[in-house]
Amino acid sequence: MYYAVIMAGGSGTRLWPLSRQSSPKQALRLVGDKTMFQYAVERIRPVFPLERIFVVTRAQHAPILMEQIPELPAGNFILEPEGRGTAPAIGLAAIHLKDRDPNAVMAVLTADHFITDTEEFYQVLGAAESVASDGSLVTLGIQPSSASTGFGYIQQGSALGERSGFKFFAVQRFTEKPDPTSADQMVKSGDYSWNSGMFVWRADRIMEEFRRQMPKFYAQLAEVEAMLGTPGYEPTLKRVWPRVAKQTIDYGVMEEAENVAVIPVDIGWSDVGSWANLPELLPSDEVGNVAVGQHVGIDTRDTLVFAGNGNRLIATIGVEGLVIVDTEDALLICAKEREQDVRAMVKRLEEMGCGEWL
Amino acid sequence: MYYAVIMAGGSGTRLWPLSRQSSPKQALRLVGDKTMFQYAVERIRPVFPLERIFVVTRAQHAPILMEQIPELPAGNFILEPEGRGTAPAIGLAAIHLKDRDPNAVMAVLTADHFITDTEEFYQVLGAAESVASDGSLVTLGIQPSSASTGFGYIQQGSALGERSGFKFFAVQRFTEKPDPTSADQMVKSGDYSWNSGMFVWRADRIMEEFRRQMPKFYAQLAEVEAMLGTPGYEPTLKRVWPRVAKQTIDYGVMEEAENVAVIPVDIGWSDVGSWANLPELLPSDEVGNVAVGQHVGIDTRDTLVFAGNGNRLIATIGVEGLVIVDTEDALLICAKEREQDVRAMVKRLEEMGCGEWL
Repeated sequence: MYYAVIMAGGSGTRLWPLSRQSSPKQALRLVGDKTMFQYAVERIRPVFPLERIFVVTRAQHAPILMEQIPELPAGNFILEPEGRGTAPAIGLAAIHLKDRDPNAVMAVLTADHFITDTEEFYQVLGAAESVASDGSLVTLGIQPSSASTGFGYIQQGSALGERSGFKFFAVQRFTEKPDPTSADQMVKSGDYSWNSGMFVWRADRIMEEFRRQMPKFYAQLAEVEAMLGTPGYEPTLKRVWPRVAKQTIDYGVMEEAENVAVIPVDIGWSDVGSWANLPELLPSDEVGNVAVGQHVGIDTRDTLVFAGNGNRLIATIGVEGLVIVDTEDALLICAKEREQDVRAMVKRLEEMGCGEWL
Repeated sequence: MYYAVIMAGGSGTRLWPLSRQSSPKQALRLVGDKTMFQYAVERIRPVFPLERIFVVTRAQHAPILMEQIPELPAGNFILEPEGRGTAPAIGLAAIHLKDRDPNAVMAVLTADHFITDTEEFYQVLGAAESVASDGSLVTLGIQPSSASTGFGYIQQGSALGERSGFKFFAVQRFTEKPDPTSADQMVKSGDYSWNSGMFVWRADRIMEEFRRQMPKFYAQLAEVEAMLGTPGYEPTLKRVWPRVAKQTIDYGVMEEAENVAVIPVDIGWSDVGSWANLPELLPSDEVGNVAVGQHVGIDTRDTLVFAGNGNRLIATIGVEGLVIVDTEDALLICAKEREQDVRAMVKRLEEMGCGEWL
């Protein structure tokens, strides 16, 4: 059977001060009136019944997420004692699914992206399942709309075939986030797509890769797997997990995996992992201002105001290219081109011992 | 006898959103731990006993100001039903003082300026009293420290004499706020000083000027004066005042007055009527940031953060030359060179019917 696994583990420091340790980005209402997590689940309900939608998240965030989709079976939340990166999160999900269904095919999806062409998305999920059933590790590549330096890129190799109208290719290589020149070259070449972080594969196939490429993690996972369905599961997980090395699925598995395929797709995909990308998803005025909340601007251009904190007014005069995020106890004013440094601000606050604002 | 009259009538729209209709600028703690009004009164207590310190303010603001200096006799607050500009405020004070003391000399002082060299200030107040006793209208001219376009200028004419070491001059002319070129020329010429809005004169002499130059206002004032000390005073004032034409003392009286003298002084005087001037009075870091309240900046320069609103944090990344004023229900972010437009923002909010933020 085919299962969706929504990765909802990150805390989203790049969306500070809206995202907090107590309020992760999946729980934020960034666009429209639903949280990112609600969108992530509701988007796929037409293709996955609720009982086959799983969520991997940190235990501390689970109650917040459970509240948001009360219909989702509580047992479908796979809880990590702490975040160890995407590879361990996927491994944990894989043993749960394999336990339930030895033939499980899992679609690894994300909660911090926006997809506007859901019909196309449903089609490609079907095509990817078909390719994955044969044993491929399928990655969904996003056709680049710009030479973004914010994503990793996937270079496609030889064509492998076509399913339901979608071509799929061997993967030549995965690249990390590029510099602007490389990004430009890759986009112009036409055979690169953005690494969306969405994958489809059989649970047994990804386990095979963990065994081959991350043997230490595989052994740790086996300890946990042995306790599935027993009272020993949680204590074992809590004991093992802090010792699991942090690793991403890209670096830990995908770059050297066997039988990897990419399906380039065009599904109206946007990253909402940071403030810079948000304005694209919200209505703007004629001079590029996007305001959520009460904003009055005089000679204000290309500025994102994200407030909506009670009845506060944000007034701006003679400013351009700013990100202004107003929350109850913290205000961020950041030059748009410096938004990657929001993470540095969070780090700075940590170092200063300002935990109350994190 | 010699009396101080502190003009505390303005609401201070240029200091929005800190100044509000319900919280005028005199009641703000802008510098140090005292309000501007407290500084204005305490500054002159070494030279004026409390019973000779008077305050002209709007009736609606009186309770706030009275709370701040409870020792000041309530009867020394001269209340305007509404603000009509500096000329009517001074006229109202003049009839009160004349009523008490036909030989009253009044020092008209302000509550929105800062004076660091108080010893020199005391000396010049004494010299000015002496000059004023002879019948001159004395204005205190501030020796310019820059070619500011934010003040009116006074051109001195022939030397008239010297009192207690202070030279005083005839006034050649008063000028309005100049353009940058004129300001530059005036400062270079050496015979201009800034119009501080501080004056010393005999109450009967200023009344004489009102009679001669503002006869309609003089007649209105006479109506009020006739009721002084009777139950008819307040109803008469309330009836007359709304019909009094708005007028400044500079334009209404000083420009065409007879027997005007200027004493140029150097008393460490600063205007704190707008956000741009405030940083000079507060400690700044090595890259020109001034922060009141909790501020953490990454690559932030030449920026004023005025917060101190509970436990809120202001975080800035990659910004320069901003004024950031954070209050409980409104936030202002303004380019420093556009700070004169804070008034325009207040007007805009009025037009939009956003009275709750005014």
